[in-house]
Amino acid sequence: MTNPLRIGLFGTGRIGQVHAANAASLPGTTLRWICDPALDRGRETAERYGCPGVTGSPEELLAAGDLDAVVVASPTPTHVGLIEACIDRGLPVLCEKPIHLDIRRVDALREKARAASTPIAIGFNRRFDPSIADLHRTVREGGVGRLEQLTIVSRDPEPPGAAYLAASGGIFRDMTIHDLDVARFFIPEIVEVTARAEQSFSPEVAAANDYDTATVVLRGAGGEIVTIVNSRHCSYGYDQRLEAFGDAGAARVENLLPLTTRRFGADAAEGTTAPYYSSFVDRYAEAYRAELREFAEGVRSGTVRNPGFEDGRAALVLADAAQESAESGVAVAVDPSGLAGGEGREGLSASAGRGAAAGPAS
Amino acid sequence: MTNPLRIGLFGTGRIGQVHAANAASLPGTTLRWICDPALDRGRETAERYGCPGVTGSPEELLAAGDLDAVVVASPTPTHVGLIEACIDRGLPVLCEKPIHLDIRRVDALREKARAASTPIAIGFNRRFDPSIADLHRTVREGGVGRLEQLTIVSRDPEPPGAAYLAASGGIFRDMTIHDLDVARFFIPEIVEVTARAEQSFSPEVAAANDYDTATVVLRGAGGEIVTIVNSRHCSYGYDQRLEAFGDAGAARVENLLPLTTRRFGADAAEGTTAPYYSSFVDRYAEAYRAELREFAEGVRSGTVRNPGFEDGRAALVLADAAQESAESGVAVAVDPSGLAGGEGREGLSASAGRGAAAGPAS
Amino acid sequence: MTNPLRIGLFGTGRIGQVHAANAASLPGTTLRWICDPALDRGRETAERYGCPGVTGSPEELLAAGDLDAVVVASPTPTHVGLIEACIDRGLPVLCEKPIHLDIRRVDALREKARAASTPIAIGFNRRFDPSIADLHRTVREGGVGRLEQLTIVSRDPEPPGAAYLAASGGIFRDMTIHDLDVARFFIPEIVEVTARAEQSFSPEVAAANDYDTATVVLRGAGGEIVTIVNSRHCSYGYDQRLEAFGDAGAARVENLLPLTTRRFGADAAEGTTAPYYSSFVDRYAEAYRAELREFAEGVRSGTVRNPGFEDGRAALVLADAAQESAESGVAVAVDPSGLAGGEGREGLSASAGRGAAAGPAS
Amino acid sequence: MTNPLRIGLFGTGRIGQVHAANAASLPGTTLRWICDPALDRGRETAERYGCPGVTGSPEELLAAGDLDAVVVASPTPTHVGLIEACIDRGLPVLCEKPIHLDIRRVDALREKARAASTPIAIGFNRRFDPSIADLHRTVREGGVGRLEQLTIVSRDPEPPGAAYLAASGGIFRDMTIHDLDVARFFIPEIVEVTARAEQSFSPEVAAANDYDTATVVLRGAGGEIVTIVNSRHCSYGYDQRLEAFGDAGAARVENLLPLTTRRFGADAAEGTTAPYYSSFVDRYAEAYRAELREFAEGVRSGTVRNPGFEDGRAALVLADAAQESAESGVAVAVDPSGLAGGEGREGLSASAGRGAAAGPAS
Repeated sequence: MTNPLRIGLFGTGRIGQVHAANAASLPGTTLRWICDPALDRGRETAERYGCPGVTGSPEELLAAGDLDAVVVASPTPTHVGLIEACIDRGLPVLCEKPIHLDIRRVDALREKARAASTPIAIGFNRRFDPSIADLHRTVREGGVGRLEQLTIVSRDPEPPGAAYLAASGGIFRDMTIHDLDVARFFIPEIVEVTARAEQSFSPEVAAANDYDTATVVLRGAGGEIVTIVNSRHCSYGYDQRLEAFGDAGAARVENLLPLTTRRFGADAAEGTTAPYYSSFVDRYAEAYRAELREFAEGVRSGTVRNPGFEDGRAALVLADAAQESAESGVAVAVDPSGLAGGEGREGLSASAGRGAAAGPAS
Repeated sequence: MTNPLRIGLFGTGRIGQVHAANAASLPGTTLRWICDPALDRGRETAERYGCPGVTGSPEELLAAGDLDAVVVASPTPTHVGLIEACIDRGLPVLCEKPIHLDIRRVDALREKARAASTPIAIGFNRRFDPSIADLHRTVREGGVGRLEQLTIVSRDPEPPGAAYLAASGGIFRDMTIHDLDVARFFIPEIVEVTARAEQSFSPEVAAANDYDTATVVLRGAGGEIVTIVNSRHCSYGYDQRLEAFGDAGAARVENLLPLTTRRFGADAAEGTTAPYYSSFVDRYAEAYRAELREFAEGVRSGTVRNPGFEDGRAALVLADAAQESAESGVAVAVDPSGLAGGEGREGLSASAGRGAAAGPAS
Repeated sequence: MTNPLRIGLFGTGRIGQVHAANAASLPGTTLRWICDPALDRGRETAERYGCPGVTGSPEELLAAGDLDAVVVASPTPTHVGLIEACIDRGLPVLCEKPIHLDIRRVDALREKARAASTPIAIGFNRRFDPSIADLHRTVREGGVGRLEQLTIVSRDPEPPGAAYLAASGGIFRDMTIHDLDVARFFIPEIVEVTARAEQSFSPEVAAANDYDTATVVLRGAGGEIVTIVNSRHCSYGYDQRLEAFGDAGAARVENLLPLTTRRFGADAAEGTTAPYYSSFVDRYAEAYRAELREFAEGVRSGTVRNPGFEDGRAALVLADAAQESAESGVAVAVDPSGLAGGEGREGLSASAGRGAAAGPAS
Repeated sequence: MTNPLRIGLFGTGRIGQVHAANAASLPGTTLRWICDPALDRGRETAERYGCPGVTGSPEELLAAGDLDAVVVASPTPTHVGLIEACIDRGLPVLCEKPIHLDIRRVDALREKARAASTPIAIGFNRRFDPSIADLHRTVREGGVGRLEQLTIVSRDPEPPGAAYLAASGGIFRDMTIHDLDVARFFIPEIVEVTARAEQSFSPEVAAANDYDTATVVLRGAGGEIVTIVNSRHCSYGYDQRLEAFGDAGAARVENLLPLTTRRFGADAAEGTTAPYYSSFVDRYAEAYRAELREFAEGVRSGTVRNPGFEDGRAALVLADAAQESAESGVAVAVDPSGLAGGEGREGLSASAGRGAAAGPAS
């Protein structure tokens, strides 16, 4: 067995903890350095996972000679700078989404990212969820025939706090962006975005001038329609479903059950004994592991297949379009050529021989 | 036991057969007259169900003195005239949807319908499906808390033939109209309609300048979002699902299984041994029975609670708006006051104390 | 269309009502005569279903010249006499199970039944349940490979009343007998019966010197094991499940849902909004219809495929053996040749080329 | 955080690997010593999990001063000796089931085990499966009312090889023993065992004079009936289900799904895209982790709640009785007082105020 990949981690907040645990326990990786300006939390995390190096200075981590790759789980505004520094140092990087909330900052880095000699992976972990990956494989192997409709229901257990909301960029850039990437996982070329949204239940969300409830409709270059149903709360846990529908059948990812126990009584039958998972950390635990495993194997083999910089940019372009459509009430066309996948993207091949999205309206 | 309600039936096509069988077999009704210009088919139907009177002339049926109510299952263009004749004769009428494909023809009859002394029921049978009715009851009794999202997946097994398509009025007025009525069953006041649609798979549908695939998004006066996903085909049978989501939970109507058998093998587990129902006649058999039972009991008691003329009109208004939005790419506002429910409508009460649909866009 | 089969019905109790409604509404049958010593109830039933003839005298019904077949739904002690009278009159008969509670009375009629020129069908309705029939078809067509295990869970919603219990013959002859017939539907040749049973919860059942809870294990001539789990009560409705397991897979009949609605909340997810059916009349409504339809078509075509006299006898033989085993704690061998199927039985062919049930014990 | 528990592991075969991985990765444990006479495999395992000590000599491991507890995963014949050595050394031990295949060897150690000052845990891992534990909690908290029936379906994917079969002690002592312990987890006092079994499909199993298919029926002191359905093969993966039925409801553990994907097509709907797990290592991965976690926490806190020596003995007593009953065809009484639970057993309290198992037979 070869030596494990030595990983340097930026950030030890909620997601940082997930990456720290995985980097420390996966057979192919080891956690070598942790950087967090909150040094106490950084040290505590390092101790918990047996990580030898801790620092509060990004420069110190980047300058360490004993690193093979970097994971960025620090706050969003730091992402662009850290990605750039990794490119400059020739360090493979896996950066949490989003690259940045402002597309101009993303575009400013675009050329450099394209020219980078080392891989840039963006943390769209859902592509690595075993069931979503299985659905993708099923579709790719023709299990539903030609893909016509993709329908996503995605609801968070609870809205984030006021501070998070204020800096989140809004529901589309913060939450829907995962669904938009899943949409592109199945249908890389999106040509139009329509969104309707509401301030339905949360005064905090309304105070942040944001929406808590939304439906987004995408049209694909091959005539596909993607429908995304979002809510910022869900009393029965994390509601995460996905259906691919084609001319020969359909396949669905249903919610993941923490337990398989079912109860039967005078009032109801067949129900679970508890609600679904209450957080993405639990629901997508295996996805985070698989994401890092894939990244590490990719770095080692020279071919990183994780979603890349262009995928990160494309999801933001779609989120921006959703925001615009939700505000204007008008469908927003997007340029699919600008959404072409980045390194490692494993999209479904567009249906050959079909014309552009047609219809009486066009 | 009182005498059964004597029913006169117009039309003995596919839906006419369903109504004939139910009128003949329900305890509270009897099939007294059949009218069909295709006299052979009418006679054959009459014989099958022991109906004593058959005629090819609408006037003869309407003039018969031994009728208590009329069911209209003849072609759409005849609906307006027959409803009017029933009003004039003082005959309670249950007319298949739609009232007419042209809203102007519907509006021309609107005042007379309002002033009618006898009930006019429109055949939106889904409200009578036992599971949809159970979902409605669940929502009304607070089972999901305040209703925020209604999500409908509705797919037909196969697109209709060319002749039917040409006269259908398009997917929204012909197929989605059922879902639009279901939406109004839960959320009577709709304020906006957005639709995106495609000619995705059917050359016949495209030749009719129609769509075969669509997503429609409605906004309710209480800030609710309704999402309707439609397809004109479905390889695994009639796909008819409905989810009501609120702040305290959700409830769903799942697909109805013809059989409860499940198979387990080396390739898969837990699957049914056959696809779902292949037609609305089978899937909604119980709904049609319950619809006629409710109508008959309503006529007898003096209070028909079936959806009425205004419900029929409202669904058409929404379908027209969907057509317009699908063509223009712009959300279409509708006047909820014009959609106020007709006689017998049993909508959920609008959430008191909330303002109009709000959001950064407004 | 030919004339419907004219049916004479003995008994208008709970099951009699089911048969009356079916005989009156099925396309191929008509209810011609009703006989019940409780004349008021008989007349009321006749009126409800439009049956022209009512009598309190069995002889009058049997002597009526305008009958094509007889359905016996009167109390168990009358069955043997009425079957014999039908044989004598050359009238096809469908008799509710059991033929008699005393095997000697059954055996006394056996020769005459064998020699009868007209069909004798026994009302084991479960064979006609659409899902059980589908499971049987699945197994017959090789869907599970060679059948090895059959597992039945069968629980009644509530124990019967004291009067019924006293005359019921005990749980095995009254309730398990249905499961024993289902076992024989799949595995006609049973060679051994073992039963363990308890007076677990019902003082009334204990007072009748009967069991309320039981497990019965059968061995088939082909080495199959059948396991039957019974209870006389079930808080969540009629629990009726069946699994066929073979070397290539398994197939199961799950419980039938009155509604497809599911509820999701903070405490549980995916549960039905109500328990299962509360009575066999509802759970097996379609089975009763199919049973009578099959019988009527069989009488008309000359080949009745319903379970026959020998099936009725075989189930009683097994029930007697279960009673004996429950009392003695010893496995009871039965002679499979004596259980060979009656007319119309459509059992699965015994596995050719296998020896008798083998094992270290034998 | 306190220092992790230093564990010494005997055996690095299939189960040994599971324990090694868990001991190395759980936060509260560390893998300190490995002993395997197959030294190469031991060394390889030690390297994989970063275990500092490896030896081929049990004495060397037991004499090491730096151990806090021992896990025994070596072949069954070594169990008794190693447990005894651990008692002598004052080392807490978690030993894989069974203690021994010969009850006399178990009984010879019984007094010493009772008098031991350090805990002896037996590896009945299913009690730690999250869903089975949840079912147990549900039952204990009254979720099904008074427990009346426990029904277990337990099928292995494939029969073991000839060498394993020859030394296995037979299906009851090798496979059913897990189900017997689960039965005692819910109903500690078993008073009678009945078993019927077959050589249904496997020539290898028959050659070993063993059964491949069996049903075992237990009676509890409180009038409960336990039914266990076993098979040594299952084409659709590991089939592991459990139902607790009581007077107020039921709860079931259903099979665990590797993925939540479902497929819909013209032939079937709702089926998984793959069979169930193919081995106990995957199916019970979380149970093994939880078992070791509980043991480690118990050792640390001074109260080990894992099943103990008496539980290991009781399951073997029941397995012996099942073997005897399968051969004789007679129900075998067992003395429930001899089955009283060992240390840490957390059985459901017997229903107070009920007499012994009653019934016409007793």
